[in-house]
Amino acid sequence: MGVVVPLEEEVNRPASIGPLVELTGPDMERVNRMILDRAGSDVEMIPEVANHLISSGGKRLRPMLTLASAAMFGYGGEHHVRLATSVEFMHTATLLHDDVVDESDLRRGRSTARTVWGNQASVLVGDFLLGQAFRMMVDAGSMDALGVLSNAAAVIAEGEVLQLSVAKNMETTEDDYLAVIRAKTAALFSAAAEVGPIIAGASRAERNALKSYGINLGLAFQLVDDALDYGGSQQDLGKNTGDDFREGKITLPIVLAYRRGSEDERAFWKSAMEDGLNDEAALERANALIARHDSLADTIARARHYGDIARDALAPLPGSDYKSAMLEVIDFCIARVT
Amino acid sequence: MGVVVPLEEEVNRPASIGPLVELTGPDMERVNRMILDRAGSDVEMIPEVANHLISSGGKRLRPMLTLASAAMFGYGGEHHVRLATSVEFMHTATLLHDDVVDESDLRRGRSTARTVWGNQASVLVGDFLLGQAFRMMVDAGSMDALGVLSNAAAVIAEGEVLQLSVAKNMETTEDDYLAVIRAKTAALFSAAAEVGPIIAGASRAERNALKSYGINLGLAFQLVDDALDYGGSQQDLGKNTGDDFREGKITLPIVLAYRRGSEDERAFWKSAMEDGLNDEAALERANALIARHDSLADTIARARHYGDIARDALAPLPGSDYKSAMLEVIDFCIARVT
Repeated sequence: MGVVVPLEEEVNRPASIGPLVELTGPDMERVNRMILDRAGSDVEMIPEVANHLISSGGKRLRPMLTLASAAMFGYGGEHHVRLATSVEFMHTATLLHDDVVDESDLRRGRSTARTVWGNQASVLVGDFLLGQAFRMMVDAGSMDALGVLSNAAAVIAEGEVLQLSVAKNMETTEDDYLAVIRAKTAALFSAAAEVGPIIAGASRAERNALKSYGINLGLAFQLVDDALDYGGSQQDLGKNTGDDFREGKITLPIVLAYRRGSEDERAFWKSAMEDGLNDEAALERANALIARHDSLADTIARARHYGDIARDALAPLPGSDYKSAMLEVIDFCIARVT
Repeated sequence: MGVVVPLEEEVNRPASIGPLVELTGPDMERVNRMILDRAGSDVEMIPEVANHLISSGGKRLRPMLTLASAAMFGYGGEHHVRLATSVEFMHTATLLHDDVVDESDLRRGRSTARTVWGNQASVLVGDFLLGQAFRMMVDAGSMDALGVLSNAAAVIAEGEVLQLSVAKNMETTEDDYLAVIRAKTAALFSAAAEVGPIIAGASRAERNALKSYGINLGLAFQLVDDALDYGGSQQDLGKNTGDDFREGKITLPIVLAYRRGSEDERAFWKSAMEDGLNDEAALERANALIARHDSLADTIARARHYGDIARDALAPLPGSDYKSAMLEVIDFCIARVT
């Protein structure tokens, strides 16, 4: 009796985040404990607000990237757990502030912290988590990792402001849009993936490979997220389809549909996105125009493009379970929408 | 002809921040240049918002403390300018977020950034400045200084949340109040003064002396600030007297008047601070009660108490122009109100 290797089935199974989750499982347990510990405070409202968001079940992809990118280079210390927790706190702080800025009521299908505790608490608990993130980075003791993460913190905020200034402006170009998502999303993916090789003492080339992987994975991830807001398979979306439209957020599906549209269609986009004439009928027309001009398909094509760059970034590195898992995450991110 | 030494006049002149301003002048010019440089961004709105606050003419006491406390121990490098700028950015970021949280319309006699550019920009530009602050700290290259400042960042945010949870609650004790101002004001003064000896390689005892000086100066400073809101000499105040009252902010003059008041007076305080019955007539009555119970005088007495501790903290250190200037700042802070 031979060993049954379900090779074909393996090859054909859908791309999954499973292998990454499995490989980083034991360390992620430590990250999760540290998250609960460092979100604690004698000031009662802080753990309440923080845990609301923390327990709302994000995938925690970013800290997994940090753990995997450290393990990939044989890191055997303790600091990857601190840095991974820092990365997740930076992300959580951004979400808290984002919801205030966007005046959002729902995130991942639950009320946002600001609707439960108010904008004030959301701003301040975000500040607290950011402070805690920096504390943990300092504890991790790597000046290089600190440099990368503090740089990301400034770039993320810059991206959010840039997003404000392009909001509700239909003349936004694809490049403007890319500059926003590069700063507000890809910068943290990139930093999360780069600090692993840094603390593992990997070479400059290896560090750059992970940095490039991170930024391009982040771009692909955000492009897909923005596509999902106009349809696609939504089971893991946890936000309302059409939210971006109703908020006047200019994302690539809209940018492409506008630029490819007729005079008449452009007038519609302006009235919907700039003047806020965005009721359900308008959303229906928007979806029809996006379909007519292949804007959703091309947004996903752009995501594939960045996914390919991310894949090539890791290509020179030796094969390993970690590398395979990180490559599969690229496909997983893109498959969310297809 | 002898040299005229105007000794008596010198001794009797009012306490001034002048000597500190003069001693740190050349370095403060570099700090001011770095402030403008690091508040810059290709995202136009960022320098606009940042410069609105930066140009509004605060005294920049905190960065001066960093510069002086480094020079006091013979520091000869470049990093004190970076750390001083970081300290001012942390302060500016806090102000931007504070104005959003407090819904303030005026700061230092000018419109707040949030009334000009909106809450969203204020939150995000605050985040950006905080990110830039950490970048500069990392550039300064001292892990110890980073630890002290990142700790302060988390403590400040924690203090702000604590302040939210005691807001409009007349049962706030003097200890509750002290916990708030220790975290939201004194922690940054303390960090600002401690990083000087750290980068100068001073001893642990010297470092602790400056840390203690900073925290107690900060407490005195905030107590006086809170007293000024109910009167005193207001020429350098730049905020409206009675603002704290109208916002329902529980500060020591109120805490003391409430605890020392009759049943009837306490009912008044509750209606004014908790239920928002705080019109001009109520403010007049509040001022009368504060006067009747010596609450303002005793708030200032508390400030003197912390000022004395700050003075003693520096006592063991050898005399120097820097030490004298920093001691005089204690008196200057307190003299603002008397």
